[in-house]
Formats: sequence, C-alpha cells, structure tokens
Amino acid sequence: MAKNYHSYFENAVARVRDEGRYRIFRDIRRSKGNFPKATWFRDGLDEKEITVWCSNDYLGMGQMECIVEAVKSAVDRAGTGSGGTRNISGTTRYHVQLEKELATLHKKDAALVLTSGYVANEATLGVMSKIMPGLVIFSDEKNHASMISGIQRARCEKKIFAHNDLADLEAKLKSVPLEQPKLIAFESVYSMDADIAPIEEICDLADKYNALTYIDEVHAVGMYGKQGGGVTEERGLTDRIDIIQGTLAKAYGMIGGYVAADSVIIDAIRSMASGFIFTTSIPPSTAAGALRSVKVLKMTPEKRTQLHERADSLKARLREAGYPFVDGPTHIVPLMVGDPVKCQAISDRLIEDFGIYAQPINYPTVPRGEERLRFTPGPLHTDAMMDELMVALEIVWEEFGLTTSKVAQAL
Amino acid sequence: MAKNYHSYFENAVARVRDEGRYRIFRDIRRSKGNFPKATWFRDGLDEKEITVWCSNDYLGMGQMECIVEAVKSAVDRAGTGSGGTRNISGTTRYHVQLEKELATLHKKDAALVLTSGYVANEATLGVMSKIMPGLVIFSDEKNHASMISGIQRARCEKKIFAHNDLADLEAKLKSVPLEQPKLIAFESVYSMDADIAPIEEICDLADKYNALTYIDEVHAVGMYGKQGGGVTEERGLTDRIDIIQGTLAKAYGMIGGYVAADSVIIDAIRSMASGFIFTTSIPPSTAAGALRSVKVLKMTPEKRTQLHERADSLKARLREAGYPFVDGPTHIVPLMVGDPVKCQAISDRLIEDFGIYAQPINYPTVPRGEERLRFTPGPLHTDAMMDELMVALEIVWEEFGLTTSKVAQAL
Repeated sequence: MAKNYHSYFENAVARVRDEGRYRIFRDIRRSKGNFPKATWFRDGLDEKEITVWCSNDYLGMGQMECIVEAVKSAVDRAGTGSGGTRNISGTTRYHVQLEKELATLHKKDAALVLTSGYVANEATLGVMSKIMPGLVIFSDEKNHASMISGIQRARCEKKIFAHNDLADLEAKLKSVPLEQPKLIAFESVYSMDADIAPIEEICDLADKYNALTYIDEVHAVGMYGKQGGGVTEERGLTDRIDIIQGTLAKAYGMIGGYVAADSVIIDAIRSMASGFIFTTSIPPSTAAGALRSVKVLKMTPEKRTQLHERADSLKARLREAGYPFVDGPTHIVPLMVGDPVKCQAISDRLIEDFGIYAQPINYPTVPRGEERLRFTPGPLHTDAMMDELMVALEIVWEEFGLTTSKVAQAL
Repeated sequence: MAKNYHSYFENAVARVRDEGRYRIFRDIRRSKGNFPKATWFRDGLDEKEITVWCSNDYLGMGQMECIVEAVKSAVDRAGTGSGGTRNISGTTRYHVQLEKELATLHKKDAALVLTSGYVANEATLGVMSKIMPGLVIFSDEKNHASMISGIQRARCEKKIFAHNDLADLEAKLKSVPLEQPKLIAFESVYSMDADIAPIEEICDLADKYNALTYIDEVHAVGMYGKQGGGVTEERGLTDRIDIIQGTLAKAYGMIGGYVAADSVIIDAIRSMASGFIFTTSIPPSTAAGALRSVKVLKMTPEKRTQLHERADSLKARLREAGYPFVDGPTHIVPLMVGDPVKCQAISDRLIEDFGIYAQPINYPTVPRGEERLRFTPGPLHTDAMMDELMVALEIVWEEFGLTTSKVAQAL
C-alpha cells in the first residue's frame, strides 16, 4: 500500500478518536446457564467475572435449554451451514417452517427471513421504490441506521419527520398528492430513547393520506403482546400495519431478521431485493432454534411479565435515588450522562471495579450531548444484582461529579 | 392496504414472471453424513431423495464431524445468539480468535468478521469514499451484486471495466489523475463464469497508477492455495492485495463474511461501516465452527486436491460428450442453456425424474441469453453420481432439442 493511502485510513481513525467515539470492544464469553454473568477477558488474557447489563438477549432465551437443544439437534440432523442462497439449495424445511410460524405470529399471510434485522430493513425498504415508482418515504428522524440505509438505497424522495411527531408527519403527508405512493417507516420501541411510537395515530394518518405503513418491531417482538407479536399485537393494530419487520437476534436469542406482510408483498420482496437474493440463507440450525424460541415465547407470557417487572424494579430504584434516566414505558433503561468521555470512563470504572458491564452509547448511535449508559434488565437480573448496581452507580456518579437530584428532562 | 397498493406489488411480481425469472424455492433438507444426498419436499409434503449438485458447501465441511462438534460445544458453553452488536456485548472470545485466524490465513495484520459475505462487500466498499474523499472505484463488470451494492452506497465516481480486461482497466485508470485516490474492486473466481481474474497484472496496474486493490475471494477461500488462503495465496500475491474479502458460508460450511487487511484499514472499517456497527454479531457457535473449519482446511490440502479432481472428472465427461459447458480453470462447471424457460424446465425434469438438483441460473444473476445450469462437484460426488448425471443429461438434453456437438463459445 502506497504511503499516501495509509494516511487516509490513519486520518479516518484519528477523526473517530477526536470525536470521542473510538470503540474498544469488550472481549467476553457468556457461560450458558449463568447469564447475565459472563467472563471478561481484560487485555485478552486476565479473566474477570462480570454481570452483563447491556445485552439484547432480553429474555435470556440464548441459554434456554430447549432452544440450545433445538439448535444442536438440527446441526446433528442437517449439518452446519445451509450451503446456498435461498434459490440455490439454501431453502430448507427449517426456513419454510420458521417463515410460516412468523407469519402466524403477526397474523399475516407470509413472512420472509433475511440474514439479519439490519438486512431485513435495508433490503426491504431499499426495494420499495422499484416496486412503487414515484414513492415518497416518510421516515421518523430517530429510525435505526438500517432503515436509513434502506431508504438511501431506495433513492426516492424522502421526508424525515420529527420523532413521534404526528403534526409534523401530517404536514409532510399533506404536501404530497393523495394518489402518489407513500410509505411511513417507523419503529415501535425506540431502543435508545426507550419510548414507543403512537402507532394507532400514525395508522390513522396513513389511512387519511393513503400511505403504506412499515414498522420495525425488533425491540418488541417476543416481549410485547399476548403471544410476543410486538406492540402491534399488544395494541390490536397488527392488521393496520402493512409490513412488520422483526429480528430473531434479540428476544428470540438467535440471529437473523424478517418481514411479515401480505403474500404479494412478500413475493415482491423475495423476487426483487438484492440483499435477500444474493446471500447465503441462515443455517438450518439457526432457523430451528428461532422456530423453537418463537413457539416457546408464544406460550410463556410470564417471561414478558418478569421482564417488565424487572425493568420497573430497576426504574423504581433509579427514581428513588434521583438519577437522570429516561423513565419511559419500555423495558429499556437509558441513564443519561451527556458527555462521551465521561460516559466511556464511567463504563470503564463500572466493569473494572465492580464487574458491571454497561456499554457507553455515544455518537453516532445517539446525538452528541445525549451520551448515555443503556441498561437492559431482564428476567435473570436478580434483586441482589440490582442492589450491587446501585451501590456501584452511587460511587462512580459522585466520583465523576454528576448530579442525582431529579429525573432529567434530557429527552 | 388500499387497493391501488396491492396492484403495485402484483405488477412487480408479474414483471418478474414475464421475464421468466420468477423463482420457486426448492424446499430441501440435507442429512448430515449423507451429503450431497438430501431430501426434497415436493409440494411441501411428498419426500424424494435427491443429489445436490449446486451447493456452495463446496467441500462438504457442513457435515464434517469435527465442525459439527465445534458448533455444538460452543452452544453448550456459551448459548445460542451473541445478544448484541460487536460494541454492545456481542464481541466474544470466539469472534476474537476467528479474526486472528483469518488474519493469519491471509498474512494480514487484522481481519473483521461481518454477518455475511454480502454485508462484508457492501459495508466495506460502501465506506471507502468516506475514508478517501474524491475516491474513484474501478469495478469489474461481472462483480457480484454485493460489491455493486457497496459501490452504489459509496456514492463516489465509479468506472466499470470490461470483465478481466486489462487494456480497458488501464485506459480507465489512466483517465484519472495519479494522485487522486483509486480502488480496483474485483473477484478472484467468478462463480457464474468459472474464470479467474488476472490478479498479478491487475496489481501491476494498481502499482503503476497508484490504486488500492480489493479482491473478493468468496469462491476461492478454503479451496485454492496451500492453506486455503485463496487464489492470492496460490499465486503468491497476498501482499499485493490491500483488502481481501472472503466468506465463511461456502467452503467453510458456516455463515458470515470477512475482510482482512492492514490494521489501520480494518480499524477504519470497524469504526465507520454502518453495516458492521449496527447489527448483531454472528453467534459464538458460528464463529467457533468457522474457526475450526479454517484450521482444518489449512491442514488438509487433500480436500482441495479431491475437489479439483472431481471437477476435472465431471468436465472430462462433459467434454467427451460434447456439451456446451464453460471449460475453465475453476472447480465450478456451468452448462450453458441460453433460454430461461428451457433452463427452468430442464432443472425441473432433472429433479423430478432423476433426483438431480441443479438450480437454473437465470437473469439477473447472469445476463439474459446466458442462462445456465451450474454444477458444483465436490469431494463427495462419486463416479456413480456423475454417471447418473450424464445419463439424465443425455435424456433431457435431447428432449429439449439442445445440441451436444462441441464446447460452445458461449462466453
């Protein structure tokens, strides 16, 4: 590599460092059966026991014995990888059954599994403008990077509306002729802000202004709704959403993403989306594990009850102590720090001194000045773990000169 | 969904049908230990034993006992999913070790694992223009959809050069000022045409015109080179390529993709590529299986010998019988049909009547008029299977009025 190129890459990394968003990945290993406990390999060698407070395996399904068994038994039966794209030997019984189950979960005709939630958003939104020439996409300003990427890929007109702001959305919808195709893309649970979209009102606007609706439920499937069908199920709005997108990588404890919709919509995405067509399908064992996980979570509402009880319990402790956390309606608990360097330093101190792992969330995941620690309590976080967390927080919070008076108006 | 929207999706699917490229996925199940034999669920119910001739599990590693054990043992130890992005609790010992191994395989400082080969190409190429403002990307016209997608994402100037055409590439390189940043993106083995790029000559041009080199080795890693490091290793060109991209989903029998390069290059991609940052990492067990597979294939050159012997053996049979196949230097054997409807019909007949599964490759995977069946013989395809294939081909070839005189000049 010529010298001049080296400096391009060095400068790029230097810019990331200067912005205080250079990331050092924590090298950990979970121990099945002990989650949220895990081992942290500090400096790659030294081992330390930690409690994971930032996993998206929200319900601990990744260590549930019957899920593990489903994976192992599929590997024993069918081998490891699928060996092909969905069209070239990579469609298996496992994929077919999983898609049927996901369609049923969301009360839709059909579903399509993609390699990740990111790819599901990117590939699906990216192909919409090919299907609907002249499409205008209305996108919530806090939509996930994968939706933004898909919308960029669509290369059609887009209008960004203020977060969860119905008036702004309506004004923007109104500005486009009624007969022109429109799609409103938004999330149910916004994981960084821990709030929930006004889904019903957005659907009302969609009806009024003739728009399709696309919802990202990755932080909700498995955790909201009677059977884990997300906030749309919980609020009885499933049939008002045209395309429901979800993930198998969070509450379901596996990897992969999906969309569920009318057959003809799924058929068009399946037939046209590059990010679906030209990639190896998920392993049969991943599909088998996900299928089992979806089925189990349909039947075990108590896991959802426990999740929300645990989140409420942590929030009560934080409220009591006056921490500036986002006291929202979801299971996610962001604790505002508001400074990227402090946020990183607090996270370092928590894991180093107390074995508490909460990753700092800095720009570009959240806007600058809104840096935070994001806690994801789950059914397996005990009262004792919460007590430990509160003691540790008290010490580091004071050390870094932060205040605990009242819940901040940070968001 | 309003009626008018329904018709958009219907029309999109109708266009796909009209172009003869509507795909019906074959629902199969491989049986570990019996690959390339598998079960085909015809109409979703009826079961039929088939021989898979189109898998990208080129070496059958997906059923190798020590790979299966590596996966199962990691699931037992660490659970199923990783539970987070690489930055938020999703970096594990398994990921770290796999990346070290991949870097070593390609004699590079570092490697980065992404969720698929598709994502590795898209995310990496997509971020290059952010790192090098003013970048011009020179892209082989037959580059894979994922590279094209990444180049589109980069939104920089691009110049498409004729496939493997050094004169055209040079003319295009010459047209850009020497000091302006350039990147040549190409593949080693082109899987649909079964040919190999003139890698050394492309690197010479890169040196002469001050360009970075990016090679996609997904159809070569594990199968070419003394240790499976791809065609770049086989030809001693590893150090002349700046970024080597590969997959864990084909010869290595798992899922996932990666790039290997200088540390600073990997650090920049790791820090800036949206498709890497904002997605759940591959499961620990996938990393464990891939790590085992890379290690095993480093030590077992005989698998590569067998692969190429089997490919040669099939090509000899086809040559002898005068079929219009692409008689190239790779392990892939495309048999030209040149008509999308016949290509599909022949594939249907082969699986229905003879239990031989070779997927038709139609537009957009290959240009219109170049439709083909693509055979991927491997170490596990026996002489008897090849004999059966030749008998079946003879019957269907005649039935569809195709000629077998001499090797076609189709490409």
